[in-house]
Amino acid sequence: MTLTGGSIVAAALSQGTGKYFWANDPATDEQLQPAFFEASEVQINDAVEAAENDFDRYRRLPFAQRADFLTAIAEQLRIIEGDVIVRAQRETALSLPRLQGELTRTVNQLLMFAAYVRDGSFLHCNIDPALPERQPPRPDLRMTQVPLGPVVVFGASNFPFAFSVAGGDTAAALAAGCPVIFKGHPAHPGTCELAGRAIARAVELCGVPQGVFSMLQGERHELGAELIKHRLVRAVAFTGSRIAGRALFDLAASRPEPIPVFAEMGSVNPVFLLPAALAAWKTELACQYAESVTLGVGQFCTNPGMLFAVAGPDLQAFTAAVQTRLEQLGGGVMLHAGIKRNYQTAFDILSERPGVEILSGPGEQAGCRVSPALLKTTAESFLSDPGIAEEVFGPSAIVVACRSMEQMSACAGALQGQLTATVHASDTEEDIARQLFSILERKAGRLLLNGFPTGVEVCSAMIHGGPYPATTDSRTTSVGTEALQRFLRPICLQNFSSGLLPGELQ
Amino acid sequence: MTLTGGSIVAAALSQGTGKYFWANDPATDEQLQPAFFEASEVQINDAVEAAENDFDRYRRLPFAQRADFLTAIAEQLRIIEGDVIVRAQRETALSLPRLQGELTRTVNQLLMFAAYVRDGSFLHCNIDPALPERQPPRPDLRMTQVPLGPVVVFGASNFPFAFSVAGGDTAAALAAGCPVIFKGHPAHPGTCELAGRAIARAVELCGVPQGVFSMLQGERHELGAELIKHRLVRAVAFTGSRIAGRALFDLAASRPEPIPVFAEMGSVNPVFLLPAALAAWKTELACQYAESVTLGVGQFCTNPGMLFAVAGPDLQAFTAAVQTRLEQLGGGVMLHAGIKRNYQTAFDILSERPGVEILSGPGEQAGCRVSPALLKTTAESFLSDPGIAEEVFGPSAIVVACRSMEQMSACAGALQGQLTATVHASDTEEDIARQLFSILERKAGRLLLNGFPTGVEVCSAMIHGGPYPATTDSRTTSVGTEALQRFLRPICLQNFSSGLLPGELQ
Repeated sequence: MTLTGGSIVAAALSQGTGKYFWANDPATDEQLQPAFFEASEVQINDAVEAAENDFDRYRRLPFAQRADFLTAIAEQLRIIEGDVIVRAQRETALSLPRLQGELTRTVNQLLMFAAYVRDGSFLHCNIDPALPERQPPRPDLRMTQVPLGPVVVFGASNFPFAFSVAGGDTAAALAAGCPVIFKGHPAHPGTCELAGRAIARAVELCGVPQGVFSMLQGERHELGAELIKHRLVRAVAFTGSRIAGRALFDLAASRPEPIPVFAEMGSVNPVFLLPAALAAWKTELACQYAESVTLGVGQFCTNPGMLFAVAGPDLQAFTAAVQTRLEQLGGGVMLHAGIKRNYQTAFDILSERPGVEILSGPGEQAGCRVSPALLKTTAESFLSDPGIAEEVFGPSAIVVACRSMEQMSACAGALQGQLTATVHASDTEEDIARQLFSILERKAGRLLLNGFPTGVEVCSAMIHGGPYPATTDSRTTSVGTEALQRFLRPICLQNFSSGLLPGELQ
Repeated sequence: MTLTGGSIVAAALSQGTGKYFWANDPATDEQLQPAFFEASEVQINDAVEAAENDFDRYRRLPFAQRADFLTAIAEQLRIIEGDVIVRAQRETALSLPRLQGELTRTVNQLLMFAAYVRDGSFLHCNIDPALPERQPPRPDLRMTQVPLGPVVVFGASNFPFAFSVAGGDTAAALAAGCPVIFKGHPAHPGTCELAGRAIARAVELCGVPQGVFSMLQGERHELGAELIKHRLVRAVAFTGSRIAGRALFDLAASRPEPIPVFAEMGSVNPVFLLPAALAAWKTELACQYAESVTLGVGQFCTNPGMLFAVAGPDLQAFTAAVQTRLEQLGGGVMLHAGIKRNYQTAFDILSERPGVEILSGPGEQAGCRVSPALLKTTAESFLSDPGIAEEVFGPSAIVVACRSMEQMSACAGALQGQLTATVHASDTEEDIARQLFSILERKAGRLLLNGFPTGVEVCSAMIHGGPYPATTDSRTTSVGTEALQRFLRPICLQNFSSGLLPGELQ
């Protein structure tokens, strides 16, 4: 499939003019063809206006047709699977099995939303029938939900499929009935174009209004800002760094008419090993932990970058085993030069904090290649410097030695918002685990017992979210069926005749 | 009951020192005793810290005990009913039947939340059981919700019970499991003290942790800002003016750790009369409309301050009948001098806009007394100056004459966010009504057919909310059972042993 280097405006290729940029192969530092054109102001405006103009027609389609459209996107992704995976591999240096798995996950996610939308139950209707005899009489009141309007989606470099053009946020917004303007990720523009064209073909095949989907290429920061400030945009979904997420949140909050920003900004995903669990399972926990930390070269928002345990011989043995296993696992190629640079900088800042000791560093390697890093510190150091819990995005972990369970609880209490928090406990430690979870419940969106947080299941009970700074809205999830609720708002219909009620309220 | 003039910190009277202020009787301009002390920084901090310290104990109480607590508050309000209504009448000049009705509504609201909380269904749990045979295996995943933490509530002057100390926001937050710090309303501080003491007694009787409730008196703007900026505060609920609501929203969004602000800021609640409905029912519609506009001296956020109809003899007759009925109904005493001043200023600004004509003005009367006002304009004028739809809080209405149904639709499309929007249609006008509602659905939280928006039913299907500037979060309601969802966030428990699962997930 030949790439055009253009954007997609209202489900049609739109070549663009003016400035352009290229993708790089992070494994070879080779510039990849073709050049991609920066979306222009005209393209931005055309995309948003088309979204607004076609919003009403799209949201009024029968739910079955909306579901068919999501299914068609999934099918179109399968059709281009071979080509898009080859291009994604060049642009991200992620492994073939990893990309195959991610594409399957992305396809299944679209199918999950299709099934959820088809029956209408996602609207969570409430009905309070009229009480004409009551004094004063109660009118008939029926609650349903309506979509918000055009949604701008920003993808993440670490998931070129599942959190990109046809990823979870796009699927959730389309499922909710909102048109999507996707801001292409400059680290994988070719992957974006192929996935965008797949969606455009699904638009055509299903006959849904074309304004429902646009994808704008660009590496200028202003592109995102212009989209968020556009008066017709109604909500924003974002996955990426805290700095970028907060900047978008601030822009949206300062609009004359503020709009919600659902930004997922990552975290250190603390893991707590209780003493008996550590004693009994230290060798296998060390292996599993090292594997979780290095999975995908550590480039997961759910990467468990911080581990707490009570100091002693067991923790020493565990830490040594983690180090050994990390060395065996080795490093890998990060997604792009910027991510590698940030990994090294964040590691350097962390390693220079008082009380932090390096066990192994990220190495000095050519191109985007890095090694896993392991550090250690004490609970005292963390408690006096919470900056030790700042995320190092990449295959890096810090082990925090606590003097006692009380101190471990104090550390849990000192954490900021997290996507996940994990406790490993033996059968005899249920009471301590309960106490710890009672603290962690206020810190994280997902709590795990005896597992590792990488690997986010896409299902109805999943919460991929958490208190700030993990996200900008702790009351939502960006993965799972409930992710579509972000793009809906409730309305109440009072005293409507049955002819005027929408199908779900009949 | 003797008023102390103090605040309530952690369910105990806290006298205060330093600056003080008085309430006024708006009907007589008499200063009411006693003096009320401005809450100090120490009291603010004590209240928030007590809320945080007791949060965990409170949220872990069995739901039945939380429900008993809400019921006890309702009972305590009934016990002081006589005293609190007398004081509220002096402080607000609202009529006795109105205040009695509002107290009953407030009591019923508490009982509604008690019933909703008792069975645990409000948590909207999802369960995805483990699939150990699947490749890769799926762990057990269970979703429930947890309360956010300490909530600051700002009440409204126009509802001294239902949107004040023991009103809907307090009830919803307490029902969700969140401690409440109520910022006392300076226009009815005595009513606040009495209601606050009723809650404090319920705290004592039920043995719930004392930090769960505080009420801080004050007329300084800084009091609200200090509360919102307090690092331990987790959410804000507000009912009042757009300027104040937006200021609180901006403060909360600019915190290092942003928190949600659920501000309900009112609207003009447009009413659309379709031609056949106008022709058939003009006389009764005029009476009902005038009564809705003047109810409670027009001091309702759901006051229908703007009406659209197609120009012609029917509209002329309707408008004349409204004017006559408004004159019959006469004016009343507004809640306080500031509200009267704002009413007159907003009326003056509106009446001086191009194309706006005064039919009757608010009059020049002593004290807080005002007359109802009626204005008219054309759709052309509104479409070229959307400022004509700015709310005039009080018994004021503007009739907008449209040249055609198309122009009426254009006016609907030009409206900003509203709490409600109403269409009056005859049986033969269902298609036009459907078209109009399809536009209004994007504008308002509640849509009414053949009714008037004043009178907000407290039930499970109610939405008292809407797009900005009606509220700062269109995805929520501040009235009805779903109002408690604002104070919850979802969490996912992965691979939890049954001993660790909370009751609702067992």
